[in-house]
Amino acid sequence: MNVLVINAGSSSLKYQLFRMEDASVLAKGKVERIGMDTAIVTHEPAGGAEFHEVKEILEHTSAIRRVVELLTHPQQGVVSAMSDIDAVGHRVVHGGEAFKHSVLVNDEVKKEIRRLFDLAPLHNPAAMLGIMAAEAAMPGVPQAVVFDTAFHQTMLAQAYLYPVPMALYRRHKVRRYGFHGTSHKYVSERAALLLGRPLAELKLITCHIGNGASCAAIVGGQSVDTSMGMTPLEGLMMGTRSGDLDPAIVPYVMGKEELTLGEVNSMLNKHSGLGAVSGISSDMREIVEAMEAGDKNAALAFDMYAYRLRKYIGAYAAGMNGVDAIVFTAGIGENSAQLRRAVCEQLTYLGVAFDADANAVRSSAERRISTAASMVAVLVIPTNEEWVIAQDTYNLVQGLS
Amino acid sequence: MNVLVINAGSSSLKYQLFRMEDASVLAKGKVERIGMDTAIVTHEPAGGAEFHEVKEILEHTSAIRRVVELLTHPQQGVVSAMSDIDAVGHRVVHGGEAFKHSVLVNDEVKKEIRRLFDLAPLHNPAAMLGIMAAEAAMPGVPQAVVFDTAFHQTMLAQAYLYPVPMALYRRHKVRRYGFHGTSHKYVSERAALLLGRPLAELKLITCHIGNGASCAAIVGGQSVDTSMGMTPLEGLMMGTRSGDLDPAIVPYVMGKEELTLGEVNSMLNKHSGLGAVSGISSDMREIVEAMEAGDKNAALAFDMYAYRLRKYIGAYAAGMNGVDAIVFTAGIGENSAQLRRAVCEQLTYLGVAFDADANAVRSSAERRISTAASMVAVLVIPTNEEWVIAQDTYNLVQGLS
Repeated sequence: MNVLVINAGSSSLKYQLFRMEDASVLAKGKVERIGMDTAIVTHEPAGGAEFHEVKEILEHTSAIRRVVELLTHPQQGVVSAMSDIDAVGHRVVHGGEAFKHSVLVNDEVKKEIRRLFDLAPLHNPAAMLGIMAAEAAMPGVPQAVVFDTAFHQTMLAQAYLYPVPMALYRRHKVRRYGFHGTSHKYVSERAALLLGRPLAELKLITCHIGNGASCAAIVGGQSVDTSMGMTPLEGLMMGTRSGDLDPAIVPYVMGKEELTLGEVNSMLNKHSGLGAVSGISSDMREIVEAMEAGDKNAALAFDMYAYRLRKYIGAYAAGMNGVDAIVFTAGIGENSAQLRRAVCEQLTYLGVAFDADANAVRSSAERRISTAASMVAVLVIPTNEEWVIAQDTYNLVQGLS
Repeated sequence: MNVLVINAGSSSLKYQLFRMEDASVLAKGKVERIGMDTAIVTHEPAGGAEFHEVKEILEHTSAIRRVVELLTHPQQGVVSAMSDIDAVGHRVVHGGEAFKHSVLVNDEVKKEIRRLFDLAPLHNPAAMLGIMAAEAAMPGVPQAVVFDTAFHQTMLAQAYLYPVPMALYRRHKVRRYGFHGTSHKYVSERAALLLGRPLAELKLITCHIGNGASCAAIVGGQSVDTSMGMTPLEGLMMGTRSGDLDPAIVPYVMGKEELTLGEVNSMLNKHSGLGAVSGISSDMREIVEAMEAGDKNAALAFDMYAYRLRKYIGAYAAGMNGVDAIVFTAGIGENSAQLRRAVCEQLTYLGVAFDADANAVRSSAERRISTAASMVAVLVIPTNEEWVIAQDTYNLVQGLS
């Protein structure tokens, strides 16, 4: 069975076609600048040459039609006909409280995703465009939706409620949802395998550190807390997002700078974080480069970033009363040896014996970067959200979940 | 030498007169409802009968004049003349970045406190009323100001800066200041004495848990981090304050409920926290009572409160890479055995061996509530901010600091 995984943005669409039998990626690619007469299509068939084109693609249905053409194309294709695509799995950012698991798409599911537009005004409408487009372009092919929030639905009220008037929860769904759930779930399962211990008996802290970043506290395979909140703004310092702040700063700055609600949101989501503190870049690689070249603001941005992450690891160790392993994943987590070292070398109080040599090795393999004697294991595990989406979709279509 | 300590609110004024030689309180009291023709004066001379009166007191100068009359009164008094009051020490909430220590009042100091009205619009103007009133009512008596923020001025930039555009720091002083500094400083010094170890070699987490609540991480006697931020809203869940939130909740709720900046501030400062979650009370004693009687919302409020405090303790243990002692102080910290137990029994991963029996004993003494074998000591130390203010004032007047 082949499963097409789609991650739709408002003007872009990424895809991967998986052959489930051997977990291989048959092809992947993306369509950018949807809505323009100069949209860009990039298609990479496994083992074949990368294919590029610039053409008019005005909406998502045309984009998916073009993807299907390429996947089934005599030259660039990897399957012979659309009937070889057995199911489609969509990434949806916000599943609210309604979706605790991945589900097959039907009218009720679409209605519920629309109800959540309010909570994820940037992401859910885009995902809906992808779903509608796939339904139109690939009639009769079963579709599933996989939510970034679903994995965190196991949190207890003490972790998911905010200490604000409860009417805000009842009327406006104000609570912690958490994001990156697909990634936290995946790396926690892989961590158990790498440690050779049952997931059911592990306390894990998973750190998904990319341009967006979140930590999760995972007990026995279930998320008990996570740093992103009602929106992806809360928690860790990120590339362009502030993360945690004194909430009183929001009205204070709105008053001082005469900002609208949209402007203050934009400031905190797009013009804060690493970029704001360093004045150089929101990209950790450039921050580390500048820091190593002696730039003081870059060093400050790096230190804040690492310090705030270390405090979250400590908070979750306390929340779970212990931790067996700390897992790093996503762009920065997988690649920045400097960040991992800055965070972990100051965790000796937890019993972390960091292996600086193992940490320094560049690799895309799952690996351990603590010594054999470490009381708490530190792992690097490349994430693979697309594969989880493909698996969930497969299981739903097969009636396995 | 006798020092009068004054804590002025916008319509109230608390005072204590200390004899410095033996650290005794000669008298204490308060004036409430200043501005009304039915202001209430309560005066407690040490060893004497409590004195009450209701009378017209329209502003702070009259209030202080009445206090001095009572302190020097043939019946209710404790000294014979105003000349027996050698100095006055004022509590000032916000010292910004200008005040890293207590100082004697002069024109420049008053000007600077006024510049900080913006950052502490409720507190600093009230303190200034107290200073002006004392100058008018007690001409020639030296006055000192002691700031809630000063002790935290040793924080590094990685702890005091927020990851927001740096222009907000430069233009509007947006940074972490922290509060309750006088209390954190006092209990950290007392903790070193109780532990019989030099403060210089200790890592402490001090938890000032009253109606307002904050934690501090203290290394070698210096504050390196604290949970309150630019304002006293950030950090722990409190009686009526939310503490930490997804910052995006602020504009979201403002939009949904059409709130002004003042209204959202009021919601988060006055109508959140324990009161909002329990629907019962913002008073921890009533929450614990209701919880023990089986009330589910009270139990939820209590659990959130304890869980959030435990996470801060964990965060600071990670921030300092270890902790020697955890100190509880202020109303709830000194008196709620239930809260201390809920927080500390889940810290075994840190090496905390909690002594539930010692914890259950009601006492106003400084004491240890961990076992002798505990790797991390847990202490209860009643705070005494007024005494610190008196000491700082004494030292300044004597030219000792």
